Amino acid sequence: MLDCKKALQAANGDFDKAVEYLREKGLAAAAKRSARAANDGIIGIYVHHGSRVAAMVELNCETDFVARTQEFQDLAHDLAMQVTATRPQYLSRKDVPPEVIEAEKQIYRAQMADQNKPEHILERITEGKMTKFYEETCLLEQPFIKDDDLIIEDLINNAIAKIGENIVLRRFVRYEIGK
Amino acid sequence: MLDCKKALQAANGDFDKAVEYLREKGLAAAAKRSARAANDGIIGIYVHHGSRVAAMVELNCETDFVARTQEFQDLAHDLAMQVTATRPQYLSRKDVPPEVIEAEKQIYRAQMADQNKPEHILERITEGKMTKFYEETCLLEQPFIKDDDLIIEDLINNAIAKIGENIVLRRFVRYEIGK
Repeated sequence: MLDCKKALQAANGDFDKAVEYLREKGLAAAAKRSARAANDGIIGIYVHHGSRVAAMVELNCETDFVARTQEFQDLAHDLAMQVTATRPQYLSRKDVPPEVIEAEKQIYRAQMADQNKPEHILERITEGKMTKFYEETCLLEQPFIKDDDLIIEDLINNAIAKIGENIVLRRFVRYEIGK
Repeated sequence: MLDCKKALQAANGDFDKAVEYLREKGLAAAAKRSARAANDGIIGIYVHHGSRVAAMVELNCETDFVARTQEFQDLAHDLAMQVTATRPQYLSRKDVPPEVIEAEKQIYRAQMADQNKPEHILERITEGKMTKFYEETCLLEQPFIKDDDLIIEDLINNAIAKIGENIVLRRFVRYEIGK
């Protein structure tokens, strides 16, 4: 009712203009809703005993309903605990800067420089070491600290399957005193 | 006792060498202590009701003793609550990039472009608006949400005076769902 009055005021009493105003407003509200749907979730927190190290994660889901479930909140908490414990550097493999990958590979090659290995073997060993590097530094590829048969990506995929909503670990941050 | 035994072992039974070993070890321990002293503190956390917004701060002090006091922990908690509530962009004025300052000033000048004000007045108004900008965006210059007679820098300085240790707000981070 208030909206109609405002619409007529905005349109200086012109009915067609008022309808157009309401239509635009409706579209804007719908757009807002759909944006909100993709951006729901909670901030998960974990503070280690003594408060010298802590982490925060943003875990997104589609609805407020899911965000408030114990299951989703436990997942967010577990992810923050994981970050606190394992100090990942990146969210996923694609977030590692190319220069970091290049520097890592050079270190591995330098370590094997005097071993006279053929090029294709060097290449294979280097790739193996890079896989290990990603497992250590990329949160989504890390083994879950509570169950190392699962990597974090699987843990999230399992939750998606069980909860029936898309779940996205958007970002994380870890603070440690003096680090 | 163990150290003396280790020192004599390390020096192959030579007493003077063992004394030198212990002296060096003492210096190293002192250096380590002083490094630790500058880097003590806690991570302060605040999670707003509903967990859609939260913040973390690293608050440093000189000793673990102070870090464990209720007073210091309350300060860290208050600072995290401040960050959650007021979404600062920078820690202090000197962290604002020059291009951001320049862009702000241009906005203020554009707003006054048709007012035919003399240059020195424009300059003064712009400086006034910049002060307001710093108060809003720089954590250390913000009024404290629990007592707006104090800015955050004063709050910390008061704690330094009362506790008798240097206290440094080193960094902060704020997460909000979808922001």
